[in-house]
Amino acid sequence: MPAITEVTIRRARREDVSIIVAMLADDPLGGGRERIEDPLPQCYFTAFATIDRDPNIQLVVAEDGEGAVVGCLQLCILPGLSSQGASRGLIEDVRVASHCRSRGIGEQMVQWAIAEARAKECKLVELLTHHSRVDAQRFYERLGFARSHVGMTLRF
Amino acid sequence: MPAITEVTIRRARREDVSIIVAMLADDPLGGGRERIEDPLPQCYFTAFATIDRDPNIQLVVAEDGEGAVVGCLQLCILPGLSSQGASRGLIEDVRVASHCRSRGIGEQMVQWAIAEARAKECKLVELLTHHSRVDAQRFYERLGFARSHVGMTLRF
Repeated sequence: MPAITEVTIRRARREDVSIIVAMLADDPLGGGRERIEDPLPQCYFTAFATIDRDPNIQLVVAEDGEGAVVGCLQLCILPGLSSQGASRGLIEDVRVASHCRSRGIGEQMVQWAIAEARAKECKLVELLTHHSRVDAQRFYERLGFARSHVGMTLRF
Repeated sequence: MPAITEVTIRRARREDVSIIVAMLADDPLGGGRERIEDPLPQCYFTAFATIDRDPNIQLVVAEDGEGAVVGCLQLCILPGLSSQGASRGLIEDVRVASHCRSRGIGEQMVQWAIAEARAKECKLVELLTHHSRVDAQRFYERLGFARSHVGMTLRF
């Protein structure tokens, strides 16, 4: 069993975009959807600027002791009327660099997101995980999530 | 088979909050989470103000020919880095007034949300629906959604 890698969770910066996209692409499901080119296509930087100025969205990275980015996660705080006007936290795009898995990095990121959602007075944190990601589902169950919903998608 | 009720989809206004909350409460799952009091608790109006000033969130209602509010839906447009920096549409809090069901109102609202997400250049629309809402899942499948994901929740 590899040791736990303690990470620092910090807000993503423009210079992290390449490594975040590389982690998104290094994935059996997401890989085919990305364009890994040098330089990276402008669409990623445009999207980053939109995320970065949105006060409800936090795109964060996990940084190891040497300052290397080894994970990413996006948390959206969504207001709503239901549950007495409670906000919800939506977790998306969770990735850990393939050479750093099973070291507790994903758990530290998700625990950060849960704490942040609580601090923002959310009553619920939710996420969608593809049916095929059985390990991810076990991971989230271990952190207290319930497989309560069906996640439905329509891709254009 | 009841006739289709043609509805107008429009942005929700502060004076719609009571009827929206009544629809959210008139539900086997959501009912116990709301507080239907007269006057309605301030928390709902505070949440409405937050939603209303968020440029990424549209809370809409369906209005019938007589101007009665018979449905509601919330659409969030969420930027992200994945899929080449594509935004996603998240549909939440879909309700049709219980005396107006099976008249195509939900379909008109969801089709509005799909069209709006396309217009905002989303590549994906996603939603979570509780496991027990089997009719809702069939409804979304009929509109082209796939049961592709597990929806996981952590309630505080």
